[in-house]
Amino acid sequence: MSQYLTDIEIAGNAEIKPIIDIAKVAGIPEDALEPYGRYKAKIDPLKITGNSTGKVVLVTAISPTPAGEGKSTVTVGLSDALKRLNQKVMVALREPSLGPVMGIKGGATGGGYAQVLPMDEINLHFNGDFHAITTANNALSAFIDNHIHQGNELNIDPRRIIWKRVLDLNDRALRKVVVGLGGPVQGMPREDGFDITVASEIMAIFCLATSLKDLKERLSNILIGYTFDKEPVFVRHLGVEGALTLLLKDAIKPNLVQTIEGTPAIVHGGPFANIAHGCNSIMATQTARKLADIVVTEAGFGADLGAEKFMNIKARKGNFSPDAVVVVATIRALKMHGGVLKTELSNENVNALQDGIVNLEKHIETIRTFGVEPVVALNRFVTDTDAEIEFILNWAKEQGIRIARTNVWEEGGLGGIELAEQVLEVLEQSQKFTPLYDLTESIEQKVTTIVQKVYGGIGVQFTDKAKKQIAQIEQYGWDLLPVCMAKTQYSLSDQPNLIGRPEGFTITVREVIPKLGAGFLVCLTGDIMTMPGLPKNPAALRMDVDENGNAVGLF
Amino acid sequence: MSQYLTDIEIAGNAEIKPIIDIAKVAGIPEDALEPYGRYKAKIDPLKITGNSTGKVVLVTAISPTPAGEGKSTVTVGLSDALKRLNQKVMVALREPSLGPVMGIKGGATGGGYAQVLPMDEINLHFNGDFHAITTANNALSAFIDNHIHQGNELNIDPRRIIWKRVLDLNDRALRKVVVGLGGPVQGMPREDGFDITVASEIMAIFCLATSLKDLKERLSNILIGYTFDKEPVFVRHLGVEGALTLLLKDAIKPNLVQTIEGTPAIVHGGPFANIAHGCNSIMATQTARKLADIVVTEAGFGADLGAEKFMNIKARKGNFSPDAVVVVATIRALKMHGGVLKTELSNENVNALQDGIVNLEKHIETIRTFGVEPVVALNRFVTDTDAEIEFILNWAKEQGIRIARTNVWEEGGLGGIELAEQVLEVLEQSQKFTPLYDLTESIEQKVTTIVQKVYGGIGVQFTDKAKKQIAQIEQYGWDLLPVCMAKTQYSLSDQPNLIGRPEGFTITVREVIPKLGAGFLVCLTGDIMTMPGLPKNPAALRMDVDENGNAVGLF
Repeated sequence: MSQYLTDIEIAGNAEIKPIIDIAKVAGIPEDALEPYGRYKAKIDPLKITGNSTGKVVLVTAISPTPAGEGKSTVTVGLSDALKRLNQKVMVALREPSLGPVMGIKGGATGGGYAQVLPMDEINLHFNGDFHAITTANNALSAFIDNHIHQGNELNIDPRRIIWKRVLDLNDRALRKVVVGLGGPVQGMPREDGFDITVASEIMAIFCLATSLKDLKERLSNILIGYTFDKEPVFVRHLGVEGALTLLLKDAIKPNLVQTIEGTPAIVHGGPFANIAHGCNSIMATQTARKLADIVVTEAGFGADLGAEKFMNIKARKGNFSPDAVVVVATIRALKMHGGVLKTELSNENVNALQDGIVNLEKHIETIRTFGVEPVVALNRFVTDTDAEIEFILNWAKEQGIRIARTNVWEEGGLGGIELAEQVLEVLEQSQKFTPLYDLTESIEQKVTTIVQKVYGGIGVQFTDKAKKQIAQIEQYGWDLLPVCMAKTQYSLSDQPNLIGRPEGFTITVREVIPKLGAGFLVCLTGDIMTMPGLPKNPAALRMDVDENGNAVGLF
Repeated sequence: MSQYLTDIEIAGNAEIKPIIDIAKVAGIPEDALEPYGRYKAKIDPLKITGNSTGKVVLVTAISPTPAGEGKSTVTVGLSDALKRLNQKVMVALREPSLGPVMGIKGGATGGGYAQVLPMDEINLHFNGDFHAITTANNALSAFIDNHIHQGNELNIDPRRIIWKRVLDLNDRALRKVVVGLGGPVQGMPREDGFDITVASEIMAIFCLATSLKDLKERLSNILIGYTFDKEPVFVRHLGVEGALTLLLKDAIKPNLVQTIEGTPAIVHGGPFANIAHGCNSIMATQTARKLADIVVTEAGFGADLGAEKFMNIKARKGNFSPDAVVVVATIRALKMHGGVLKTELSNENVNALQDGIVNLEKHIETIRTFGVEPVVALNRFVTDTDAEIEFILNWAKEQGIRIARTNVWEEGGLGGIELAEQVLEVLEQSQKFTPLYDLTESIEQKVTTIVQKVYGGIGVQFTDKAKKQIAQIEQYGWDLLPVCMAKTQYSLSDQPNLIGRPEGFTITVREVIPKLGAGFLVCLTGDIMTMPGLPKNPAALRMDVDENGNAVGLF
């Protein structure tokens, strides 16, 4: 691809408009806008009037592969295409996490001519939201350890603290640590660990809260651990929910930016649909729905992760439903699901495509199971051959699946017109969205439903530890919550190497962790880790600042 | 004081001006201003032309006591007074650290009618500077541990890593930790610890860098530890100085805010003169000196800490000198130095004042030792009696010391006019500033000079560990740097309980840590800790957000 500019070069060449102008286009009143620099702003949601009536287009994808699918890119390009078709549209994305930006990804703001700007600032500290969440999370840890150190009035058992510290970095050395060493002046030694910030329950609360009041109430309900008598201890017992809310009071306001084509974009809240619920914030989505007729939003990774959680958790809590769902796929990635090595993706291989298309097929079935009609976005890549394209279009026709080719990386919104037209047709229809399970079902039943209907597996195994945790959760009456699966993104199963559409597998749930502030139960499956590690040659090695203060090496 | 409003109430009632208007008053061109919300901005120092010719007024204080001296308050009030006297003035303060804000202080932006605004935002995440420093610091830790995990090409000895992690919180449980537990997948177990962010070498570099280029060069020179062959390992060996610079590229721009009276204020960089050098950034001071004829700035804690480091480190590196020095004292605090309990400070006690005034006397001597003429600001408190005031004014007259009474907490700039007039007189004179030691002197000699000339002690003891470290530093040729003393702020000695003006004491240096990026050698004395703890009832317990989203409980 050496003939192409890099994403950051394209972003650097783009004509970015003052954020005040973007706000005017979006209909945001001046007193609701708080600029952060010239090209970013926060929106005070209390000052946006009207009802959240805009239609919601959810963009999801096949199971990700190292080939890359371009979900964020299509999300941005689709928005720009809808704008070109004279729709009043906003795009609502998740914020990038610094961990993968410094690690592998180098950036997470779309690509080519379908990016949100300013890409460097969004990929770095971006208005400080994640830093505020990190700080609130770790302040709570400090309050817990300080409480124990100062006499432990609440009788907290240091062995039974479930609240962990976080950093917005990939740092495997912090997964398991011992804190409080050094004698009585340093506090009580205990085992602890750091998750990545996006896995923090405060991130989930941040994304699910519907108001500042709701935020504070959820924070007060965080379960931090148990006493020596095994009684649960909540944040409200420590009395620090006010301080935590204060630390989040500005971060909770949605961030306004723009696409390269000047479409207003809200970027706010949590990535990582593998270990978190992986959707942008409800306040962002609902604010965008007040301002625009159509809101295009994405959920992380494949439809088995982000979309499942969008449907069963976010849409349910936010009391809205998706009006259309786009499933992004590429021929390259489908060939990988068919067993082709990454080094051989440039060779035509219709047989491998045929073998791999089952992954797409399964995700489409899943979306239909939720009662929503999907549209496949076939995201063009320069190595796609006519035979491969013909195969996939025929396949879609035979299956009665809407499909549209997109070329937004190269052409921006123009490359998304066909997709936008299909999406508009779906939006004309009424969908019969329904979550897949009732909250009153047992935990086992909810997980089993997801495994069978979304993953295509045959059942679930719970470890003894998980069974014990479930019994405890039921005993305390916390079982009437949705489940948030933590599972590898690379496979429909919990084994990263089982690509394509594995069958006959079972999922192993090794832990069930109550997140009572967020209002869901996290089920850890397989070997999924809540703190990633860095690769041998992290993206950070290529990063720099040029003599004019501009970012170098973000992709 | 129940008849008075709290600081946050006064701040909330104040008429805050749009930051664009403040920038105009300060003469900051529009293209140099990057607004962060309506009332804060960053200034691009590359876009401020002219030379740094403004005069520098340094505000320091007696050794702090629980009575409070009001150094930041006087700094702000003096600026407002100079403005009332038609001077073109800016105030350049340090940024508050969240650790003490959530712990004891509850806020650090001046008080009463001498505050900088918006006090809540400055006290909380304030444009993300400290978060960027925390992130860069911890990213470096992750890169180090990842390097070892991925094969350890540089042969780094995990037992000899001197780079520590940081958080901008008071969290004693993190002082000593073991990381990398859990088996080979989690990395290499090793001892580590967390400092508070202000103690990070990156904070010092941030405050001492003169440009983005200088910042990057300093980052590349950070010593992170030693190989198994005891060879030093620097950041440049890891090749991540570009990424670290990128993480700091926006934070490094000075922040513009305003005083209650509308005086332009730059608030940028590091507090904690006890464990760091405790001055605001050189880029902030030098930018302010381009914009204003007089820049009022403060250094942390007593003159033995912040002012000593301002003179010997900051002024030397920044190539400027203080044109006047204000030493803040209160009758209450001096009575505490004379042995009065905090509960009895409201009773008149001239004898105690006489006993305690020796602390002020020593700090004045110190300032004169640097060749600068001090002005004492006697910061009024409602319990001061006529006899006490008369005593101190007579004392000053006898000693030939300039003194001015201030009442800025209650009256704002009006209460600082007398002080401002005295300062203007001193600014008319030329000072003969000189640092106290030459960089070519031995480490022992530099420390001894500080102990004898600034602390008033008789000498220094180095532990065996410190001696070994000094030998190593000399062997590597790193000894031609200034020293940065880490010492309790409560006493001129290294024993917090030795108040007043202790004599005949020696200082124990227990460790000497080379900070080769910052360009100084940290000497840890006494029991000083680089990660504070929280008190039994932290200020956080009183913090909240009201129904309109406003901060509650910051003081």
